Amino acid sequence: MAVATTQSLEELCINSIRFLAIDAVEKAKSGHPGLPMGAAPMAFVLWDQFMRFNPKSPTWYNRDRFVLSAGHGCMLQYALMYLTGYDSVTLDEIKSFRQWGSKTPGHPENFETPGVEVTTGPLGQGIANGVGLAIAEAHMAAKFNKPDLTLVDHYTYVILGDGCNMEGVSGEACSLAGHLGLGKLIALYDDNHISIDGSTDIAFTEDVSKRFEAYGWHVLHVENGNTDLAAIAKAIETAKSVTDKPTMIKVTTTIGYGSPNKQNTAGVHGAALGDAEIKLTRENLGWHYDPFVIPDDALSHMRKAIERGSSLEAEWNETWAQYKTKFPEDAALFERMVSGKLPEGWEKVLPIYKPEDKALASRKHSEICLNKIAEELPELIGGSADLTHSNLTELECSGNFQKGQYENRNIHFGVREHGMGAICNGIALHGSGLIPYGATFLIFTDYMRNPIRLSALSQAGVVWVMTHDSVALGEDGPTHQPVEIIASLRAIPQLTVLRPADGTETSGAYKVAIEHAKQHRPTLLALSRQNLPNLAGSSIEGVEKGAYSVIDCDGTPDVILIGTGSEVGLCVQAAEKLTAEGHKVRVVSMPSWELFDAQDAAYKESVLPKAVTKRLAVEAGISMGWCKYTTSDGDVVAIDRFGASAPGGTCMEKFGFTVDNVVAKAKALLG
Amino acid sequence: MAVATTQSLEELCINSIRFLAIDAVEKAKSGHPGLPMGAAPMAFVLWDQFMRFNPKSPTWYNRDRFVLSAGHGCMLQYALMYLTGYDSVTLDEIKSFRQWGSKTPGHPENFETPGVEVTTGPLGQGIANGVGLAIAEAHMAAKFNKPDLTLVDHYTYVILGDGCNMEGVSGEACSLAGHLGLGKLIALYDDNHISIDGSTDIAFTEDVSKRFEAYGWHVLHVENGNTDLAAIAKAIETAKSVTDKPTMIKVTTTIGYGSPNKQNTAGVHGAALGDAEIKLTRENLGWHYDPFVIPDDALSHMRKAIERGSSLEAEWNETWAQYKTKFPEDAALFERMVSGKLPEGWEKVLPIYKPEDKALASRKHSEICLNKIAEELPELIGGSADLTHSNLTELECSGNFQKGQYENRNIHFGVREHGMGAICNGIALHGSGLIPYGATFLIFTDYMRNPIRLSALSQAGVVWVMTHDSVALGEDGPTHQPVEIIASLRAIPQLTVLRPADGTETSGAYKVAIEHAKQHRPTLLALSRQNLPNLAGSSIEGVEKGAYSVIDCDGTPDVILIGTGSEVGLCVQAAEKLTAEGHKVRVVSMPSWELFDAQDAAYKESVLPKAVTKRLAVEAGISMGWCKYTTSDGDVVAIDRFGASAPGGTCMEKFGFTVDNVVAKAKALLG
Repeated sequence: MAVATTQSLEELCINSIRFLAIDAVEKAKSGHPGLPMGAAPMAFVLWDQFMRFNPKSPTWYNRDRFVLSAGHGCMLQYALMYLTGYDSVTLDEIKSFRQWGSKTPGHPENFETPGVEVTTGPLGQGIANGVGLAIAEAHMAAKFNKPDLTLVDHYTYVILGDGCNMEGVSGEACSLAGHLGLGKLIALYDDNHISIDGSTDIAFTEDVSKRFEAYGWHVLHVENGNTDLAAIAKAIETAKSVTDKPTMIKVTTTIGYGSPNKQNTAGVHGAALGDAEIKLTRENLGWHYDPFVIPDDALSHMRKAIERGSSLEAEWNETWAQYKTKFPEDAALFERMVSGKLPEGWEKVLPIYKPEDKALASRKHSEICLNKIAEELPELIGGSADLTHSNLTELECSGNFQKGQYENRNIHFGVREHGMGAICNGIALHGSGLIPYGATFLIFTDYMRNPIRLSALSQAGVVWVMTHDSVALGEDGPTHQPVEIIASLRAIPQLTVLRPADGTETSGAYKVAIEHAKQHRPTLLALSRQNLPNLAGSSIEGVEKGAYSVIDCDGTPDVILIGTGSEVGLCVQAAEKLTAEGHKVRVVSMPSWELFDAQDAAYKESVLPKAVTKRLAVEAGISMGWCKYTTSDGDVVAIDRFGASAPGGTCMEKFGFTVDNVVAKAKALLG
Repeated sequence: MAVATTQSLEELCINSIRFLAIDAVEKAKSGHPGLPMGAAPMAFVLWDQFMRFNPKSPTWYNRDRFVLSAGHGCMLQYALMYLTGYDSVTLDEIKSFRQWGSKTPGHPENFETPGVEVTTGPLGQGIANGVGLAIAEAHMAAKFNKPDLTLVDHYTYVILGDGCNMEGVSGEACSLAGHLGLGKLIALYDDNHISIDGSTDIAFTEDVSKRFEAYGWHVLHVENGNTDLAAIAKAIETAKSVTDKPTMIKVTTTIGYGSPNKQNTAGVHGAALGDAEIKLTRENLGWHYDPFVIPDDALSHMRKAIERGSSLEAEWNETWAQYKTKFPEDAALFERMVSGKLPEGWEKVLPIYKPEDKALASRKHSEICLNKIAEELPELIGGSADLTHSNLTELECSGNFQKGQYENRNIHFGVREHGMGAICNGIALHGSGLIPYGATFLIFTDYMRNPIRLSALSQAGVVWVMTHDSVALGEDGPTHQPVEIIASLRAIPQLTVLRPADGTETSGAYKVAIEHAKQHRPTLLALSRQNLPNLAGSSIEGVEKGAYSVIDCDGTPDVILIGTGSEVGLCVQAAEKLTAEGHKVRVVSMPSWELFDAQDAAYKESVLPKAVTKRLAVEAGISMGWCKYTTSDGDVVAIDRFGASAPGGTCMEKFGFTVDNVVAKAKALLG
């Protein structure tokens, strides 16, 4: 311990983080580890002096949320978690960094590692998730806190890098965060001037601080983030004191700090240091411990987080106990929301329609469902990317979520689809039981595909409300008409895509979406711009099974027509005509491939009997993937090209979505 | 004409634009027209006093480029095109605004309407395309201009709105434009404080001008864009005088200007005015002409653009004539590039490999191809979104495209995938014959999916170079491992996706990509991180047909193994094992679905005979869509789940990509 004593306790702790990372990366000998040499000091100060958390109770409700937006530096977070005493990240886990089945994957994954809040790695997502976490905190605080009892009160801390700041999604989310004045969002920008291609001088010379000021953020600068711990602490302190604006602290650091030959180069961004350089770095930083050995002083100091955390949690439990006594109703709601339960019988508000009921667009049925659900479920919160009155997503029972009006539930995301997606993921992963929904035109899921993917991967229970779901949207033309979009969304694992055919099916879609949300599963609703007739055979139960007969015949059908969404009504009309001509026809409505695939073999056989191979799928989108349900003997009425600008009805007709064409295609199968 | 004379000629022209739009929108009675009431003055001043173009020769090379980034206001552009005399936009076309088959679709579409430069509508794309157009101009100017002969010299003008400025893609592209100091890019920001949801106060209160200053832009403000034409002209003049920075002119306007009851409301953003309000607006603006009637004074003034344009073009032709005499070699290259021709035999540089050649990753083969092609084709220009040394996309024969070094061909896009995509589209659509390529990890096509889609729709000949194309990338884990991505890209109409199996197939992929680029068709290459053995049977010709046998048997095969990319080698190994056990096996390498689908029936039958229904597809991605090739009797070795963080070899093994598993699956089919 001779040498160690020449280091301050702070240095010991910071170097413990650095060398745990170096040793883990060296052992893993893999790709793009992002050694946290320069980021370790700011992270240490944050976790040691400011972060309120309990390593032994990682989901304690009122903890400060920490997001490592620069996710490739995940060993920073794993080192901190091990040193402070999380059970999920043991020394053995760190030794199996980036190995199959370990709790220390190549980027932070909340679904793998308890204590990790969100899944980062795709750059810019983390900071945008952070905006969502801060929105959730602000909303829950406004909703539940009482003058004399503060139940919800935590900060959201984010560490982000140059890459995060170059990504448009961070700009979108941070512009909104500034507009909303989210004072408890504090971002530490690891300003090390290096990205994978080398110095940021080759591509990124903008004034980031000025840009954040333009967003309405409070901006600070720590000039020496490598060693000036006092300045880092002072900056965080100052950030906390500004309550009406989010704060961005630019912390200037040296990437690879301490590595004599590789510091301040892209070399440390994408590769391990290598034996020789590690040896030099150990000497340079006076680190004479064997790999994975942490000096007792450092470990025992860092582990104080456990005691600190348990008393913080105990304090909060005391507040909670008083809250329950004084405000039993609010407490009951809070408890239900956080527990992830739904109120008994909530789904009874979902309307059922008869054929004689007025034909409405499924986006309109969606509006009705959202508003009825909002009355039952105060945890429903969300909005649209500036298409509120096209997507029809406004909750009449609430106002606009704005600075100083955080109790409201209508979020105006602005024309920021990508930011909206990542923000919704953050809201869902806050652990408050909030059910966020985000809306835009279906075509613009292409602007937010990564957050939709991440909602599925990271188990964020979001409801994606996507309208104008086919060429039937008409005049806006091919730039706005989805054709390949539904298929491309079905491709995403763990995402449930629903395309309801009428009012009752839209209710079914929402029943599934809300239940999934509480099970931490996202759903995506594809809704029509145009009006759809209400079908005699549609049902909520049918939707829950993914596919079912809405029209059937006696005995074995000669042909099965399979439709989704707006095309089911068309199939029904075609079936009537075919039946009149003496054919035995079944019409299957298939709102969701994923739900149908999850049914047992018997049910699948009952809907699509192996014996009936003459199957015609009808969907106003590409044919890709339908062969799975139509078999090689079947056919598809689809649109395997881009759309065109014309009235919606004209588009549908020109692309073959007419009763006559469906009948003709069916007859061709019948031979 | 009594009333008209009370209006200045400028007012007459501006109101001609406004009422052509009002009348067209009213006749179309459709959705989201974006009436250009407030934007008309700035557009008029720009087209009347500054824009150098020839309506009768819309593709004249040295024209100024105009991009309406706020594409929903397309009637603004159609009105200007009709008034200045483009043959593509007649009064009849304006009367069939947004109708099937018209040249006046719901958003500007370059592939429908000669004179429209790029396809806009998805917000933010246009301004980012504009950055690409300006990059192309700067590069061609640096490459071809001589001290005494200026061949390339034009501005790129963009009109964008609040929506464009909220989108992250515009921030990414504009940050890069500022870094590159693109002085001939001039953006007019229609600052009308209204987006579809209402006042921008509800979601967009940042200081846009300050943000653009932070990007390094020259920023100006016209306070009264409704009537102060002199101020607009002065601002554009000033913008042109600043040559080392792009300029953003914030032009404050009133949306729906002139409409007594709807101006300054979201009402005019998304809907027609309606008879009553149109009547009031006509009175208010002193417009007493019948619908679609343009006063002679206005038309004759605007049509002067033809004379102006033809003399500008004649001048330039004179320069061009001198250039050809003085610099015949440069002139020949310029002529070839602009004509879209490839030099005879260019493809001979593409290497062919033998099995004994070293196994390399297809990303490495891609690097070899890019560098060999770059020597032959000076029009190849591009780069990576900060992954140059992972994507392996650097051209050794050139330097970095930077401010003052525009002759270079290595563009560092920064961590800005979405911006890169839209910029590449702009470069491709500049009409210089440039072949742009953009690179990142395959997974991050999710960040740039809309521009990839638009490259296909708008016929932009871009080469998308995507590496790390499966879970075999390993440790970075599921956030970085594509599984559904290849399928989701195959879903895009008019996009050719290629996944080469080895060195020779990578050469084949580049032969297709370069030829497609010159035919204004984009291609996307999916390339491996890991090394791949060179196959005996692989060929460039095979790749061009999309699918072909790399291993065959005598007579009809018992089973056909179909592989793509890195899995073809696995199929070959499995086939050897199966053959040794007495089975008749064919291995089909299928680098491209699209190319194979385009072959004639005879060829398809020769590769996948109807008689052989026992087919096993092997691809390290989701199974979606494979049934089209495997038939209902076939099977797929696929990954229908998210990946995991572990060494690449481990991932492939755990997910069933082993010889034994492929053999077992094949035997199961053989029964």
